[in-house]
Amino acid sequence: MLANGTEPHLDASFFYVTGFPYGLFEESYVVAKSDGSVSVLTSPLEEGIARSHADGMEVQSFSDLSETAKKLKGLVGAGVKSIGVNSSELTFRSYSTIKSIFKSAKIIDVSDAIAAARMIKDETEVRLIQKACDIASGVYPKIQTMLKDGVSESEVAAKMAFEMQRAGGSGVSFDSIVAFGKNSAEPHYIAGQSRLRRGQFVLTDYGTKYMRYCSDITRTLVFGRATKQQRRMYEVVHEALELGKRLCTTENTGEYVNSQVTKFIDSTEFRGRFIHSTGHSLGLSVHDGAGLSRYYKKKLEPGMVLTVEPGIYIEGVGGVRIEDDVLITKARPRVLTTAKRELIEI
Amino acid sequence: MLANGTEPHLDASFFYVTGFPYGLFEESYVVAKSDGSVSVLTSPLEEGIARSHADGMEVQSFSDLSETAKKLKGLVGAGVKSIGVNSSELTFRSYSTIKSIFKSAKIIDVSDAIAAARMIKDETEVRLIQKACDIASGVYPKIQTMLKDGVSESEVAAKMAFEMQRAGGSGVSFDSIVAFGKNSAEPHYIAGQSRLRRGQFVLTDYGTKYMRYCSDITRTLVFGRATKQQRRMYEVVHEALELGKRLCTTENTGEYVNSQVTKFIDSTEFRGRFIHSTGHSLGLSVHDGAGLSRYYKKKLEPGMVLTVEPGIYIEGVGGVRIEDDVLITKARPRVLTTAKRELIEI
Repeated sequence: MLANGTEPHLDASFFYVTGFPYGLFEESYVVAKSDGSVSVLTSPLEEGIARSHADGMEVQSFSDLSETAKKLKGLVGAGVKSIGVNSSELTFRSYSTIKSIFKSAKIIDVSDAIAAARMIKDETEVRLIQKACDIASGVYPKIQTMLKDGVSESEVAAKMAFEMQRAGGSGVSFDSIVAFGKNSAEPHYIAGQSRLRRGQFVLTDYGTKYMRYCSDITRTLVFGRATKQQRRMYEVVHEALELGKRLCTTENTGEYVNSQVTKFIDSTEFRGRFIHSTGHSLGLSVHDGAGLSRYYKKKLEPGMVLTVEPGIYIEGVGGVRIEDDVLITKARPRVLTTAKRELIEI
Repeated sequence: MLANGTEPHLDASFFYVTGFPYGLFEESYVVAKSDGSVSVLTSPLEEGIARSHADGMEVQSFSDLSETAKKLKGLVGAGVKSIGVNSSELTFRSYSTIKSIFKSAKIIDVSDAIAAARMIKDETEVRLIQKACDIASGVYPKIQTMLKDGVSESEVAAKMAFEMQRAGGSGVSFDSIVAFGKNSAEPHYIAGQSRLRRGQFVLTDYGTKYMRYCSDITRTLVFGRATKQQRRMYEVVHEALELGKRLCTTENTGEYVNSQVTKFIDSTEFRGRFIHSTGHSLGLSVHDGAGLSRYYKKKLEPGMVLTVEPGIYIEGVGGVRIEDDVLITKARPRVLTTAKRELIEI
């Protein structure tokens, strides 16, 4: 059983199962039974959307939140023995509601199984992610034309979002990072009021949603001629990126890829400057399950879509990160993002 | 104790307590003790942001997720008897983690107290919401210039987002709704590929974030000369809006305001066409607590910021919704959104 809270506390798996292309479906439930049947309980507000995309699913609505218990019991069957829930996207409140309605049922956390299923993309999902990647890659040349002396980070971020939406995206997949100069040394910076000056790094980390599926790409360039240090930082990250992508095969575990990329950067003069994991799974969420980190000890599998995003960060100086999205296949990984990777000096 | 999961499963209260202006703080914790001390446990990735905005808070970081337990115990004290959590924004997984670390502590749901606190805005919060409202209101005249024969909903949505971000917003507070013609009859529509034709309703429901605080405004206009029916729908909704705002005083409960607005619409020929609540609390989240609905049976209080958003929806024809954001004061409510409310025909 999947349950949404109020926005943003919605379970992406709700949309994975139902395929509803839009709508929030706050306080709504999906009941998927072992016989393969799926039913949806939602409010009258979005019942229309649900019915027009039901595709064989049963759709019911509650006229009042107090009806939830009765209707859910009807859909699930009052004598149910066990109910699987998705702990990583279920609020504790929704859990408590379910528990209070089905007092004698055992609540089982099936989030690992859901995450594992969601990590393997089918053809339709790959097509949507590819489209989201195409939109993001296509915007990168336009970003370069936005970079002028004195332009602000937030102005560039605004234009990027506009260009992606104009190209068919339904919105950014996360708040874009546009970091000038030393701001680029902070991996989770967003876009502020800093203004661009000659010689600075320009780090852009952004993506779009397309039919709920996300892209996530990072490029770093130099506004002016790169210094020797900037060039060297870029070279090392670029090499780490290519190494990481080459290692994205079914032979390797996520942990192994991460450790090799980290080791490579640590073998250079930038030892200790790579302070996050190498990548994560991408899909309905930007962080759509495990990925290229010490926590994912399993081998990669065909159908996984992962980001590969090494970086080097030097406080007070700046940072370089380059990020591609790749699809794991039986053979070599397919790289979904295509924006130019060679060092650009503007 | 507040705990974030992975994006978007972050607790807005985490930022309410810490005031961190940017950063995701995934898998991070806030410990607020009864002595008034606040400490933060986060990853090295965002430790820098936390330290530079600590403002008296203790900041610690874990080098590995497995360190969380040890570090949390250190911050909380192993012998703690009870821990309050925010059930509506805490994932069941994070709850389970906390429960497993503090086995003998009683976990108490304090979400109602947190929601009640967050519903009352202080001067700084009102200033940020006012700024977010100003940005949204300021964009409305620009939207009117975007409306041309054949323009698509998503193109207008893209331009709206751009204009808000250019004006200083950090991003949309939710996916903008731009609905032409009969699409406006679906309250939770987003923006699709429909193209504008003469005589259609244009419903725009949108907002921006400013320093994490949200605005939320809706306006509906007619692209061409309004028909008699369109004009009448607009008049009734406009009157319902003004009634709703007038009733937003400390004399009335949220339930009462909602029932009066609903009753008013039901007293016209549009009986039964108003199919959602009259409004909701606005703040760090777009739905920031209870509001003008049958579920809020308490009196309104000074410092609350609420949306007032009556609508009339006729399937196959279209819908009208007009929405303002208001601050409850000791006297009359202060209306924070200022875009023109009279029927616009373009």
